[in-house]
Amino acid sequence: MRATVINCSLKSSDTQSNTQLLADHVVKELEAKDVEVGTFRLADLRVPYGIETTIGDQDDWPKVHHAITASEILIVASPTWLGHPSSLAQLMLERMNAMMTETDDAGRPTAYNRVAGVVVTGNEDGAHHVISEISGALIDLGFTIPAQAWTYWNRGPGPGPQFTDTDEGHDWSIQTGATMASNLHAVAHALRESAIPVPPNAG
Amino acid sequence: MRATVINCSLKSSDTQSNTQLLADHVVKELEAKDVEVGTFRLADLRVPYGIETTIGDQDDWPKVHHAITASEILIVASPTWLGHPSSLAQLMLERMNAMMTETDDAGRPTAYNRVAGVVVTGNEDGAHHVISEISGALIDLGFTIPAQAWTYWNRGPGPGPQFTDTDEGHDWSIQTGATMASNLHAVAHALRESAIPVPPNAG
Amino acid sequence: MRATVINCSLKSSDTQSNTQLLADHVVKELEAKDVEVGTFRLADLRVPYGIETTIGDQDDWPKVHHAITASEILIVASPTWLGHPSSLAQLMLERMNAMMTETDDAGRPTAYNRVAGVVVTGNEDGAHHVISEISGALIDLGFTIPAQAWTYWNRGPGPGPQFTDTDEGHDWSIQTGATMASNLHAVAHALRESAIPVPPNAG
Amino acid sequence: MRATVINCSLKSSDTQSNTQLLADHVVKELEAKDVEVGTFRLADLRVPYGIETTIGDQDDWPKVHHAITASEILIVASPTWLGHPSSLAQLMLERMNAMMTETDDAGRPTAYNRVAGVVVTGNEDGAHHVISEISGALIDLGFTIPAQAWTYWNRGPGPGPQFTDTDEGHDWSIQTGATMASNLHAVAHALRESAIPVPPNAG
Repeated sequence: MRATVINCSLKSSDTQSNTQLLADHVVKELEAKDVEVGTFRLADLRVPYGIETTIGDQDDWPKVHHAITASEILIVASPTWLGHPSSLAQLMLERMNAMMTETDDAGRPTAYNRVAGVVVTGNEDGAHHVISEISGALIDLGFTIPAQAWTYWNRGPGPGPQFTDTDEGHDWSIQTGATMASNLHAVAHALRESAIPVPPNAG
Repeated sequence: MRATVINCSLKSSDTQSNTQLLADHVVKELEAKDVEVGTFRLADLRVPYGIETTIGDQDDWPKVHHAITASEILIVASPTWLGHPSSLAQLMLERMNAMMTETDDAGRPTAYNRVAGVVVTGNEDGAHHVISEISGALIDLGFTIPAQAWTYWNRGPGPGPQFTDTDEGHDWSIQTGATMASNLHAVAHALRESAIPVPPNAG
Repeated sequence: MRATVINCSLKSSDTQSNTQLLADHVVKELEAKDVEVGTFRLADLRVPYGIETTIGDQDDWPKVHHAITASEILIVASPTWLGHPSSLAQLMLERMNAMMTETDDAGRPTAYNRVAGVVVTGNEDGAHHVISEISGALIDLGFTIPAQAWTYWNRGPGPGPQFTDTDEGHDWSIQTGATMASNLHAVAHALRESAIPVPPNAG
Repeated sequence: MRATVINCSLKSSDTQSNTQLLADHVVKELEAKDVEVGTFRLADLRVPYGIETTIGDQDDWPKVHHAITASEILIVASPTWLGHPSSLAQLMLERMNAMMTETDDAGRPTAYNRVAGVVVTGNEDGAHHVISEISGALIDLGFTIPAQAWTYWNRGPGPGPQFTDTDEGHDWSIQTGATMASNLHAVAHALRESAIPVPPNAG
């Protein structure tokens, strides 16, 4: 089984991502279940704005798209800015928009029979909303969201510490991430055994 | 297989509910798959505010709670008011809050291995947000949300017609509802064959 | 100048409301500016579901409606449940829906030239979203929302302490509430001096 | 009086923006009130990801920032993608994040005593949520949002026509935009006459 993590931090890889640190705990749990996990850091890539799978000839998105469609599990990792998913998380969703009309050999939207979950960190309140926004859009695209397939960390009220500034609350976030990994794996497995069929409104 | 529909219209049964009319199309599709469907109209019931499963001795919620936990499929049907889920939809979620700590014999939260979807109508824009809000909360409670497990109808911009005022757009909403029924049934079936196990953070 | 606080806690007055405790700091600041403040605890009242100003003959909403329209400042105080405004906050918005078509003598929606702000507490993340949801609906109804007219308190990640369980973060929430009171008062004053005129789409 | 419009369409100026077409009606109303209006099309500019006012030496954001702080009125125009504000709208908010700690000569956050409104188009439902998300963030940054300071257009259910594909609903959207312009102008005027003072939590 394969999983793709898309890290939507605004920072490129030369700066540490708090969101990646929390996502890494989920990755470790998936790897312990023999899931092969690949990670993209969107801020490192060249991803034009738009809603198609390929835009121009200097577009890094097609390789992310390929990884998503080659994986049974998608994990979206986003920081919280102004209480919202990051601009890169929304850019990712916009580029995935084309997946609604792309179909597999049987005529199902590409995302069908794949599962997804969300990892969020922030220096302020907003994680539940970020999770709902991203999960809602992924359901729309055709992903299935397993029970409690998310984890988050923040420590308010008001602008507070970063994830790396303190250990407070880490245990809860890591343990919740272990449940997320377990549930992603279980539902991906169930859908491999018994798939969602071609929907009545296909074609 | 059993399904429970909770209609969160502000109107009690002496007045026709647009949301029910659209939900009925989903119900019909489920019944065609031999799912036994029961429906609650929350506005007909006496449901006190709170976050426990039972509140006082004149509380109708326990019978709704019983139906939810006896069903593999939950459908929440809500109108759109101010762009939000109705107060009765939020009341329903608050009363379901106790399900996070209620566990089955194996130690899993009660909602695990159940699936849920959302039906929305409105006389104005807001359905996608209503779906995200309700789906996000249900994931939190332990439900699994299948791919595209929703349908909706509205016709804006601005305050527009009710569902029963026009036939415009009904075909799309009904066809989308058929996909919703198919996907709810498929994922409920998959989870019956291959269940989400006890999560690592249980107990 | 007058202000009305609507406390949307699920608990009636025989139980202490954390949201009220934080709102009281904002009230104290307003009173120091000679604002006369009245408070309603919705859970103490009999408020039927619906979108009209008066529903039946045992409806307590009309007296709340009267207080809102007799005040220049509205403060909505809500707990956070499942990351959302409480069902009583949504019930309040639904009952205020009629204010969109009620007009003053000049033909303006009733809420025009009134300002509003939001106070939120919770035992978990979600305050920013609660503030956006309530503020967005109040703008729709015709209220003006001043700069930073909100305060909140929670302390996560995950289900954490109540406001009264710890002093952590109180200073920030109280100081932010003082700014909220200052800005509500300033914009209410500015609109009394120089009112929003009858809108072009009136009547 | 000056206004700045920020168009957050994913398309650059070589393609027509539906959102711009609706925003232009609001601009025309403001110009009729002698407001000088400038417009930025974010997709035409080079705006790096981040939360500072200036990032590197090829950053077009500082000139947008300058225009915002030189204007009494801000209009954010966004399309709807997956029911959310566009990635460019969120990028704009992230780059404005620095305005929370930038202060005027008196010590107030830069956005204080400025007003803002939102224009939304889409080929599907989601406008109310886009308006709430953007308005909520702008309040957080220090803008004041006047009564009903928004307009939108979409025509569902499901993926429907673009704004330019039909005239249906245009009248409502344009008339609502005229009210938006009137209210933005009125509250900007009121705050010029009677400003929000330095908040108690400043410095």
